[in-house]
Amino acid sequence: MPSWALGIDLGGTNIKIAVVGESEGILFEETQPTDTAAGPEGVVRQLAFMADAIYQRAAETLDMGLFAGVGLGAPGAVDVVKGTLSYPPNLPGWGRYDLRDQLQLRLEEAHGIKTSVIIENDANAAAYGEAIFGGGNAFRDFMMVTLGTGVGGGIILDRKLYRGPSGTAGEIGFMIIDFEGENVHAGIRGTIEGMIGKERIVELACSEELGAHRSPRLAELCSRDFSRLSPRHLEKAAREGDAAALRTWARLGSILGVGLANVTALMDIRKFVIGGGIAAAGELIFKPAMMQLHRSTLPSMHDGLEIVPARLGNKAGIYGAAALCFASGKLVASDA
Amino acid sequence: MPSWALGIDLGGTNIKIAVVGESEGILFEETQPTDTAAGPEGVVRQLAFMADAIYQRAAETLDMGLFAGVGLGAPGAVDVVKGTLSYPPNLPGWGRYDLRDQLQLRLEEAHGIKTSVIIENDANAAAYGEAIFGGGNAFRDFMMVTLGTGVGGGIILDRKLYRGPSGTAGEIGFMIIDFEGENVHAGIRGTIEGMIGKERIVELACSEELGAHRSPRLAELCSRDFSRLSPRHLEKAAREGDAAALRTWARLGSILGVGLANVTALMDIRKFVIGGGIAAAGELIFKPAMMQLHRSTLPSMHDGLEIVPARLGNKAGIYGAAALCFASGKLVASDA
Repeated sequence: MPSWALGIDLGGTNIKIAVVGESEGILFEETQPTDTAAGPEGVVRQLAFMADAIYQRAAETLDMGLFAGVGLGAPGAVDVVKGTLSYPPNLPGWGRYDLRDQLQLRLEEAHGIKTSVIIENDANAAAYGEAIFGGGNAFRDFMMVTLGTGVGGGIILDRKLYRGPSGTAGEIGFMIIDFEGENVHAGIRGTIEGMIGKERIVELACSEELGAHRSPRLAELCSRDFSRLSPRHLEKAAREGDAAALRTWARLGSILGVGLANVTALMDIRKFVIGGGIAAAGELIFKPAMMQLHRSTLPSMHDGLEIVPARLGNKAGIYGAAALCFASGKLVASDA
Repeated sequence: MPSWALGIDLGGTNIKIAVVGESEGILFEETQPTDTAAGPEGVVRQLAFMADAIYQRAAETLDMGLFAGVGLGAPGAVDVVKGTLSYPPNLPGWGRYDLRDQLQLRLEEAHGIKTSVIIENDANAAAYGEAIFGGGNAFRDFMMVTLGTGVGGGIILDRKLYRGPSGTAGEIGFMIIDFEGENVHAGIRGTIEGMIGKERIVELACSEELGAHRSPRLAELCSRDFSRLSPRHLEKAAREGDAAALRTWARLGSILGVGLANVTALMDIRKFVIGGGIAAAGELIFKPAMMQLHRSTLPSMHDGLEIVPARLGNKAGIYGAAALCFASGKLVASDA
């Protein structure tokens, strides 16, 4: 029987929560601004409250015997064994915090919901969501890359999350592809995130080489204020054939392709699922990325190379968090 | 009871074979020039003949009930499931060949040795050898990097070989760290092997920037013929304090360190075992590599970073090939 679970995406701005059915996907969902003022305890209270509300709503229509648990994706360093979240970048005032156990306790004591809670890094949760419900569903092994403000990643091997020995695997944004380049980001020279993180894209477009600032169409789109030029403007102009915008996407795709080639060389991963706001540019970035991926790998590694778009948008995290509960249930079932 | 196995390292120049005891290590060994003239069938005959000879010798002193099998490391693409070796770079005239089954058959039919044969890519075999008998023995997860004519690698996760979905994982030599650099190697721009493969080291040393060609001591060591300058000369001069030689090792270490940083970012691997002829320079290359590894990773990834020398030299492959037989035996035992 397909089960259902609660998936939570804890962000610095919003908390998203959903009831996810193992075969149906998201059944209903809620979003609230994250109450960061009262620190971890306040957030746990809010999480438990939201979980209780949506759980009660689920109880009206779903079989409670098939409830698989609560999965939560959170930003920052998550220790999945200890259940701790450490120094989440967008949640000020958190140190290392027992998020899993505190939420579990709060759900039981304040709301009478006795359940297991699983926590996971948000990039990993998103990758797992795409693996089970999204663009990676056809692949046994793949890397999900999220192109947004930052460049993040999650790795799926043999349909399971690869977390690495300390749980920090998948940081493709911090892969170095231009070790003597001029760009320094978070103290490291020549990283992918430093070159194609969202803030850098407009800067790159307006470089002498790419020349976006000389494009009349782009000038028009940003009302002649290039500080207001956005990736959406670059996308629109490129679709209309603007040469500078097309050069920019080709350049972004090419940088991404070099990063993917390194993943192929090192891990023999040949399938890539690309998500995040910037990936909405679709073929504008995927096509040059694929060309570069071919150029940058040995012929013996070309078989099976594939780049596909993510399919779950900003819901990948809640899907993945919930899916971890299904996987965990199955694991127990097959182990027993 | 500790068992024993035959470990074979099939190279384009030599075949090395050894009797390896699970607790004693190499008990005795033989080397012969590879008979490449008669193609795969000739090599299989030679392998079986050498295996038979050393097996008979082992039979005089070892308990034949504890014989765990034959492991073979080979250059090129090995399919460990099908047991095939494809297009080994230094064995001309081979296509895809059923090396495992043919050797197994030959051992049984021509020599009466009924045993299982395991084949593995040679870089993987070496990494596994270091994992079980060498420099990686203390680590659950590590990457072995071999610095020689090429730059190769093997990845150990949870004390097991990580081969990747198609078996080509670990190609750190083809990782790109200077995607717009001038160096193109095997058609790819800015790879680690292209920059620090053995052939490139002397070229690098004599670049304007590093200035080895202006060092009187290096001129002396290579008898003023810089085309004859070798990594050994650079090592000797550096140990004597020669500035150009020291700059060269610092540069090599730094390039290696960038590559290792990418492994840490992507896979969360923080332990590195470095082997191969060039690694004999020891701290001359390890120290700048470690400094660069720190500089090139996020502080959250610094815990546990370690670079250690490989310990088995050019015997890592035979150790690893034999060790795969022990592991396989254990796997069967614990599965049963």
